[in-house]
Amino acid sequence: MLFMLRIDVSIPPEMPQAEKDKLRERENARAAEYINEGTLIRIWRIVGRVANFSVWEAPTLEALHDKVSALPMFPYMKIDVTPLINHPATEVAEARNSSAAVRKK
Amino acid sequence: MLFMLRIDVSIPPEMPQAEKDKLRERENARAAEYINEGTLIRIWRIVGRVANFSVWEAPTLEALHDKVSALPMFPYMKIDVTPLINHPATEVAEARNSSAAVRKK
Amino acid sequence: MLFMLRIDVSIPPEMPQAEKDKLRERENARAAEYINEGTLIRIWRIVGRVANFSVWEAPTLEALHDKVSALPMFPYMKIDVTPLINHPATEVAEARNSSAAVRKK
Amino acid sequence: MLFMLRIDVSIPPEMPQAEKDKLRERENARAAEYINEGTLIRIWRIVGRVANFSVWEAPTLEALHDKVSALPMFPYMKIDVTPLINHPATEVAEARNSSAAVRKK
Amino acid sequence: MLFMLRIDVSIPPEMPQAEKDKLRERENARAAEYINEGTLIRIWRIVGRVANFSVWEAPTLEALHDKVSALPMFPYMKIDVTPLINHPATEVAEARNSSAAVRKK
Amino acid sequence: MLFMLRIDVSIPPEMPQAEKDKLRERENARAAEYINEGTLIRIWRIVGRVANFSVWEAPTLEALHDKVSALPMFPYMKIDVTPLINHPATEVAEARNSSAAVRKK
Amino acid sequence: MLFMLRIDVSIPPEMPQAEKDKLRERENARAAEYINEGTLIRIWRIVGRVANFSVWEAPTLEALHDKVSALPMFPYMKIDVTPLINHPATEVAEARNSSAAVRKK
Amino acid sequence: MLFMLRIDVSIPPEMPQAEKDKLRERENARAAEYINEGTLIRIWRIVGRVANFSVWEAPTLEALHDKVSALPMFPYMKIDVTPLINHPATEVAEARNSSAAVRKK
Amino acid sequence: MLFMLRIDVSIPPEMPQAEKDKLRERENARAAEYINEGTLIRIWRIVGRVANFSVWEAPTLEALHDKVSALPMFPYMKIDVTPLINHPATEVAEARNSSAAVRKK
Amino acid sequence: MLFMLRIDVSIPPEMPQAEKDKLRERENARAAEYINEGTLIRIWRIVGRVANFSVWEAPTLEALHDKVSALPMFPYMKIDVTPLINHPATEVAEARNSSAAVRKK
Repeated sequence: MLFMLRIDVSIPPEMPQAEKDKLRERENARAAEYINEGTLIRIWRIVGRVANFSVWEAPTLEALHDKVSALPMFPYMKIDVTPLINHPATEVAEARNSSAAVRKK
Repeated sequence: MLFMLRIDVSIPPEMPQAEKDKLRERENARAAEYINEGTLIRIWRIVGRVANFSVWEAPTLEALHDKVSALPMFPYMKIDVTPLINHPATEVAEARNSSAAVRKK
Repeated sequence: MLFMLRIDVSIPPEMPQAEKDKLRERENARAAEYINEGTLIRIWRIVGRVANFSVWEAPTLEALHDKVSALPMFPYMKIDVTPLINHPATEVAEARNSSAAVRKK
Repeated sequence: MLFMLRIDVSIPPEMPQAEKDKLRERENARAAEYINEGTLIRIWRIVGRVANFSVWEAPTLEALHDKVSALPMFPYMKIDVTPLINHPATEVAEARNSSAAVRKK
Repeated sequence: MLFMLRIDVSIPPEMPQAEKDKLRERENARAAEYINEGTLIRIWRIVGRVANFSVWEAPTLEALHDKVSALPMFPYMKIDVTPLINHPATEVAEARNSSAAVRKK
Repeated sequence: MLFMLRIDVSIPPEMPQAEKDKLRERENARAAEYINEGTLIRIWRIVGRVANFSVWEAPTLEALHDKVSALPMFPYMKIDVTPLINHPATEVAEARNSSAAVRKK
Repeated sequence: MLFMLRIDVSIPPEMPQAEKDKLRERENARAAEYINEGTLIRIWRIVGRVANFSVWEAPTLEALHDKVSALPMFPYMKIDVTPLINHPATEVAEARNSSAAVRKK
Repeated sequence: MLFMLRIDVSIPPEMPQAEKDKLRERENARAAEYINEGTLIRIWRIVGRVANFSVWEAPTLEALHDKVSALPMFPYMKIDVTPLINHPATEVAEARNSSAAVRKK
Repeated sequence: MLFMLRIDVSIPPEMPQAEKDKLRERENARAAEYINEGTLIRIWRIVGRVANFSVWEAPTLEALHDKVSALPMFPYMKIDVTPLINHPATEVAEARNSSAAVRKK
Repeated sequence: MLFMLRIDVSIPPEMPQAEKDKLRERENARAAEYINEGTLIRIWRIVGRVANFSVWEAPTLEALHDKVSALPMFPYMKIDVTPLINHPATEVAEARNSSAAVRKK
């Protein structure tokens, strides 16, 4: 079950730099964990913003909510969740891209 | 160079069904062509809407615009283009998912 | 898996009355079918509008999209889909209300 | 008399954790009280947000306002109140679901 | 039970004048009927627009919806319904104004 | 000369309770004064919000602005002012309601 | 009593040119009439749009509404009415500008 | 060269009263200076808000920006600048109003 | 005197292709004329839309409005006009880029 | 590869003046550096706002994001990035303007 998340992050500029660094470090660690377990499938930064698009896979809505709300930066995030289904064209594309992924970008 | 496109389609309900079918058929053929050439990397339908999210790869902005504006349904589309860059977490995820893509979903 | 749908319907005022009646009849029949099969759990009209809130249950996102996009009035609808999970307070409430539902409203 | 409430909660991130915990505890106790007395009929969390949809039943608008504005988190809430009436399809659905509620979800 | 309605009317400019006149006549007749029965308590035109604010009294939400959706211009209206309760200051004001209403404006 | 005001009040949650109480007390006293002098004709609370709709009568725009901007909570208010005129249906309604106001609500 | 009006005009592009010309001619004649009688005090076109800002003076809200809604292009206008009062600085400015108006712009 | 400015002012309520008074005094002095030199042609308060509409005349865009951004309250202002040109009806109106300005309002 | 224009074009999809072609041809001819005379300084297409950003230079606001409203596609355009002034950094950049413009892109 | 950026800056009014000055100085130095290296091609101030439009050239989206997010004022900026391509009319205009840039404005 796939979901597109658009996440906009608003860390208050006046937060001490050390606190910001620690927060970001914990955020990255959590993201890595989610990637390793296959929850967070893909994530891209949005150019010129502190924001990202990401594709999540979760067996239940409860699992998705638990993962997302456990992100260390969650209290500073504005999140839009969009449920996705495969487009007829997707299977073709996924097969093709999986073999190509190693040399891409 | 990657871009997220959110496309909302508004075919007028009063368009004759035969015309709608022909338009959709041409749209699907064009999408398949873009997938085969590696321009349209991924596309998901948005649940409950005639809309989709898609990830495009293009060597130049000119190439992206040419492909998008040549879609047969372009006159009926509202399109938001968001330039993307890889998130530090992406490489890890892409390597992992490319091998997993065959058994996924 | 639960979803809240807010649906706003815009039938063009100039549609002939007979066509409107037939469309509404088909819509009601489809809704009854979805209720009987347990997909459409609850539906309320919004006072003063041609709009409604409804709670849907679906095993997959694909199933939800198929059901929603097969509604006869779908081409005239603006739909917002919100994924829901139970609130800690819900189980208590559901147990309590299921026995009370017969005499309610 | 039924109402749909969409409630978005904005607890300031800088509120001390102990204060947040106490506030949430008081909120949950009040919600349980409203469920027990039959005012708060159903409540669902919105996935990925600190927000919820809920259905309230109240004999008067005054009673609804008193209950809602007495929620401990009321000063941190943005609330949209939508008056609801039964959809022709609702009675059928309610009868059917009340018996099914025990084995659901 | 009181409700504030903000109604914006959009009659298509190309509707034949005779049809517009008939529609308005029927609308006025219905409004008068609602005033006489005590459903439509007050109504004011908004300066510079084809729009109005009105206060409605209804024993149930079903009654309110039935009255509003039976307005002849309903298919051309955008309606916002806001449930109202008396402000502590209202009783004083109502008593005072009821005696003054004859000479006002 | 009549005006509809929609007022949304945003008292900062962190204001000390004693200060809030004093502010509200001063606000109520001023409102009562305006009612007594016939400036503030009617006021209703909006259910589920710290907000209200009110009808004001003023001989000049200057008088209206002076009264409104002298409200003790003015610095915390977002105010929309809509100039009103009588709807053809209003005179009938006012005559009818003035005699009925004593037993209403 | 002064009012600022922002008027945006949307004549349908498909209206026959002769009809557009006649409509505009009637609109200009009415505007001239309002200027001569002192209702329409000032009017400026907004650069790059079919829109304008204008200052109106009217003894009553009823008079303002009657004048505005009698504009031939009224069915094609979106109008925002903002009640104005003199700023302390205005009297000085008006005296100064009235003598300067002849050589200005 | 004429411009309409809509300015909304948001002085934080917690600013000490003495500071507010000083700021307003400096703002008024600057406005008077601009009126005297013919930059700020007209200014009206918006009823019920801390906001105004004003008409500015400036020989260049640079001059306009310098004047506006030198307002003491500039850091607390949200400003919309709309370039204006004379409406065909304006010359007639200006001639007429300049002689009438002494007895007006 | 410089202005940024954001122009969004909405040609109705049902306009006959021959008419669209003629309209676009006339639009291009007019744009070329404006470029040659130095009114339209720069124009860029927005990727994925029928829209553009352009920089215009005009001696007066009247001249700008005349040029813009004479565009053949003007009735199908939504235009936002933003007055611009040079940023301190601009002179440096302009000098540098003018010599570089020949080999760029 | 060209991009239009609209940047709105919100420095908190309560930031000490010395800190503001230092921040602006660092911002200007960085902008000059970007101009010298050919990343920041053009920048204009928006009249009446602390905001600007700017045209950027970057070989990759990564390069653009790195430059933009390294601006000292980045934490106080709201940025909209719009990918641009040349309009057919652009080459003509660029050639013409590069020779004219020395005597312009």
